Amino acid sequence: MATTKGIDALLLEFMQDVYYAERQILKALPKMAKAAQNEQLKQALMHHREETEGQVERLQKAFEAMGKRARGQTCEAINGIIEEGEQVVEEFEAGPVRDAGILANAQAVEHYEMARYGTIIAWAEACGQKEVGKLMDETMQEEKKADSLLNSIAMKEINQQAVKKAA
Amino acid sequence: MATTKGIDALLLEFMQDVYYAERQILKALPKMAKAAQNEQLKQALMHHREETEGQVERLQKAFEAMGKRARGQTCEAINGIIEEGEQVVEEFEAGPVRDAGILANAQAVEHYEMARYGTIIAWAEACGQKEVGKLMDETMQEEKKADSLLNSIAMKEINQQAVKKAA
Repeated sequence: MATTKGIDALLLEFMQDVYYAERQILKALPKMAKAAQNEQLKQALMHHREETEGQVERLQKAFEAMGKRARGQTCEAINGIIEEGEQVVEEFEAGPVRDAGILANAQAVEHYEMARYGTIIAWAEACGQKEVGKLMDETMQEEKKADSLLNSIAMKEINQQAVKKAA
Repeated sequence: MATTKGIDALLLEFMQDVYYAERQILKALPKMAKAAQNEQLKQALMHHREETEGQVERLQKAFEAMGKRARGQTCEAINGIIEEGEQVVEEFEAGPVRDAGILANAQAVEHYEMARYGTIIAWAEACGQKEVGKLMDETMQEEKKADSLLNSIAMKEINQQAVKKAA
């Protein structure tokens, strides 16, 4: 049912969406790290798990800054991305090809989050919610760095190993 | 059941994933444009629909270059993103706040695609599938431009209108 809710309601919904997403990611990352064989990839995933804990806390502070209770809202997008990652693990045996797939799905997670945080930051700033914007920008920088690290692990190591394996 | 499939099998699966995704987006874009009120946003979405037709054709050529039949594979991630966009349309009445939500979801679609095409290009190049890499890079450039156009419509126009509406 369409209502006359404002941008603050939409901002809150998007925050609930990423709050749910981050908590799903928190559960998925150790499984992805366990399924990975490459040591650098394992470490990058476990390091990002720690960062994600901080990101969940930052979201809780952002809800607080808006005078709202931290609450998640099912995010079918992140569920879909995580599910696709699990399929790769089921289909491919441990090794460089599976690692390439795990890494690609971790990057899809990062890109989804970057899209969402980009929007949240813009709306928070437009609404004058400076504290929310500042907190979410800290997370955004972490997501960009995580994606960039994954990219360099893919390009320097895993993709070539995966090709050799296939040859 | 895990197998010893190589990176070429993973590349093919990711291409089937985006092939499905692009065809879902082709169906979703006119609905999003219809639900939008802002003229620039409507035009951007319809222009991207035309581009998406070309992207589907490019994928068909890429499958052909690999000696494979063009085939889609259900992509739960894109289904989730599109579903979240439909929820915004259901929840918010026509106007700048709904437009802000539609635009944000179109950006989430673009980011998902950029993540996937980035991976596909890297794998295609690593596998020596030059034609596939070249075709997919053309699409990647279009996705980046589409995202950047949406961003400028949000920043220059829609977000401010949505805030005024809420005030």
